[in-house]
Amino acid sequence: MSDFPALKNDRFLRALNRESVDVTPVWMMRQAGRYLPEYRATRAVAGDFMSLCMNTELACEVTLQPLERFPLDAAILFSDILTIPDAMGLGLYFETGEGPRFHKPVRSAAEVEALQVVNTAKDLTYVTDAVTMIRRELNGRVPLIGFSGSPWTLATYMVEGGSSKDFRRAKAMAFDTPEVMHMLLDKLADSVIDYLNAQIRAGAQAVQIFDTWGGALSHAAYQEFSLAYMEKIVNGLIREHEGHKIPVILFTKNGGQWLEAIAATGCDAAGLDWTTDIGNARQRVGSQIALQGNMDPTMLYASPAAIRAEVGRILQSFGDGNGHVFNLGHGITPDVKPEHAGVFIESVHELSAKYHA
Amino acid sequence: MSDFPALKNDRFLRALNRESVDVTPVWMMRQAGRYLPEYRATRAVAGDFMSLCMNTELACEVTLQPLERFPLDAAILFSDILTIPDAMGLGLYFETGEGPRFHKPVRSAAEVEALQVVNTAKDLTYVTDAVTMIRRELNGRVPLIGFSGSPWTLATYMVEGGSSKDFRRAKAMAFDTPEVMHMLLDKLADSVIDYLNAQIRAGAQAVQIFDTWGGALSHAAYQEFSLAYMEKIVNGLIREHEGHKIPVILFTKNGGQWLEAIAATGCDAAGLDWTTDIGNARQRVGSQIALQGNMDPTMLYASPAAIRAEVGRILQSFGDGNGHVFNLGHGITPDVKPEHAGVFIESVHELSAKYHA
Repeated sequence: MSDFPALKNDRFLRALNRESVDVTPVWMMRQAGRYLPEYRATRAVAGDFMSLCMNTELACEVTLQPLERFPLDAAILFSDILTIPDAMGLGLYFETGEGPRFHKPVRSAAEVEALQVVNTAKDLTYVTDAVTMIRRELNGRVPLIGFSGSPWTLATYMVEGGSSKDFRRAKAMAFDTPEVMHMLLDKLADSVIDYLNAQIRAGAQAVQIFDTWGGALSHAAYQEFSLAYMEKIVNGLIREHEGHKIPVILFTKNGGQWLEAIAATGCDAAGLDWTTDIGNARQRVGSQIALQGNMDPTMLYASPAAIRAEVGRILQSFGDGNGHVFNLGHGITPDVKPEHAGVFIESVHELSAKYHA
Repeated sequence: MSDFPALKNDRFLRALNRESVDVTPVWMMRQAGRYLPEYRATRAVAGDFMSLCMNTELACEVTLQPLERFPLDAAILFSDILTIPDAMGLGLYFETGEGPRFHKPVRSAAEVEALQVVNTAKDLTYVTDAVTMIRRELNGRVPLIGFSGSPWTLATYMVEGGSSKDFRRAKAMAFDTPEVMHMLLDKLADSVIDYLNAQIRAGAQAVQIFDTWGGALSHAAYQEFSLAYMEKIVNGLIREHEGHKIPVILFTKNGGQWLEAIAATGCDAAGLDWTTDIGNARQRVGSQIALQGNMDPTMLYASPAAIRAEVGRILQSFGDGNGHVFNLGHGITPDVKPEHAGVFIESVHELSAKYHA
């Protein structure tokens, strides 16, 4: 692996390590996505969404597309958060307008017991192959981020059999038979450790854990069923690879109330959604971790002037100094005009220089 | 109005005023609702949802139904949060499985300018008539809560034309033409003041403002577009009526990060959803206001033992002393077994006595 080209733009990694940068680095969750016409064209070639994820060349192609348009400071592997349950044999499929679904949800103790921890080298080589190809094709332009869903987030889809409004089945399992939910979460945490370490060995230079649904829990249940397993993962990850530190970002959507606990896991950075004031978050945990975020993605439907003003407001709230990776507070949405994403990214670079003087 | 029967159970009002009580009072948001077979029967008689709201006798009947089953400490007017926009002429209707919709959404400056502040005495007498009838029928058993949606929450439905996942139209109005959104919010705040004061004069003994969608905003946008108008309402309300204090509860779902700002409006209590640790919330604002909440409503799908344990955990988190009204963190859902709601309510009374010794 050591034959990867040298990194030319390390702003993203430096910011995660709270080191000085010239301007605030920026990337967007779901930056390779449906808002880009070139993505829609490639997706049409691939067929359905999972075929695109499983096709190494096409997954690499869509990963790089947003970098051709915008001066982004990081690339993120194009994949789905549900690859792990799919590899466990649940049968992932996508129903139009319905989101992800599983043919075989996991609801009983016997079904949880029967699950095997994922062996990435055997079951998910399409992901690690894509990581290596993307890393080569990036040619050192920017770092490559690997990722996984959090155990709790994966468990909600596995127990519910798909998306859910209130997670009543997953929560009933957690509240009524916590030992069964803990067995499931433990197998998922071990799987995520194997999966992310394989991505790191394949070329990922930082990793992010997406805890999309941890914020649907109470504070106590979040600690017990989501954060404890993310902490296990943080402790099980390769944190240095071939002489480079591998930063870990935890992103719990709607987790702004729990930042102190998130920082205490030993992660390098926390992702913030837009409901958290980033200046306040920095006061609370900025001496321990970096912060990533946090513009409301819906702001991208507003005018370029409004987008620029909001970027300026967030930069000002964070203030002078290090430890900020700019991002949206959640994934970019399909109907956004690509030019508006461009205004967002350019505004971050332009308006942040003065905070790094 | 002074001929209303004397109040026999004043726990709820005492707790809102942070006075001593024998046990922690409890009620449930949406306690008159579809999880009760007797509600479904009355609703079938009324026809559609708005016909039920507009029928004084039937609205009174469903308001009282949960009190016949459970030892609740408050009743809440049965109505809809969208009565105000309906009275403004937007044409509220309900599409099966789609939630509320408006025939005439409000999207342009001209449409906002044309809106008239609601005159409750003229346009919403079906609500104040129901308040007076319920108050009489309650016969002093427990206090009656009046309510309204918050200006921002009402505005989202009015601009979007119904429910929305990301509020892109309402947010675009706020971000691109803030002066138009402010004009809309100001008319709504004046309407809510008129509406809630009319409910107070008709017999409501406390009022709650439901800010269901304030939590979808950034911290800065929440202050500007939601909280500022709730503060205007708090300042415009009748706070004492016929010798009794009228407490005001502000409930911003997903607003746990902003409690200090909510407390600073001058309200008497803040509603908490289940993501906020109530002990932590009490430390932050418990010397200024009472707190209402905050069990995850999904917990009602779990076993009676799990419900009881969770009630105990929340009571312990709040700790000894005054200023807690127990509630769910959001409305009770249609598929909950009524017996589970009963376990919840009885557990609050049973397990809280020791904290008031």
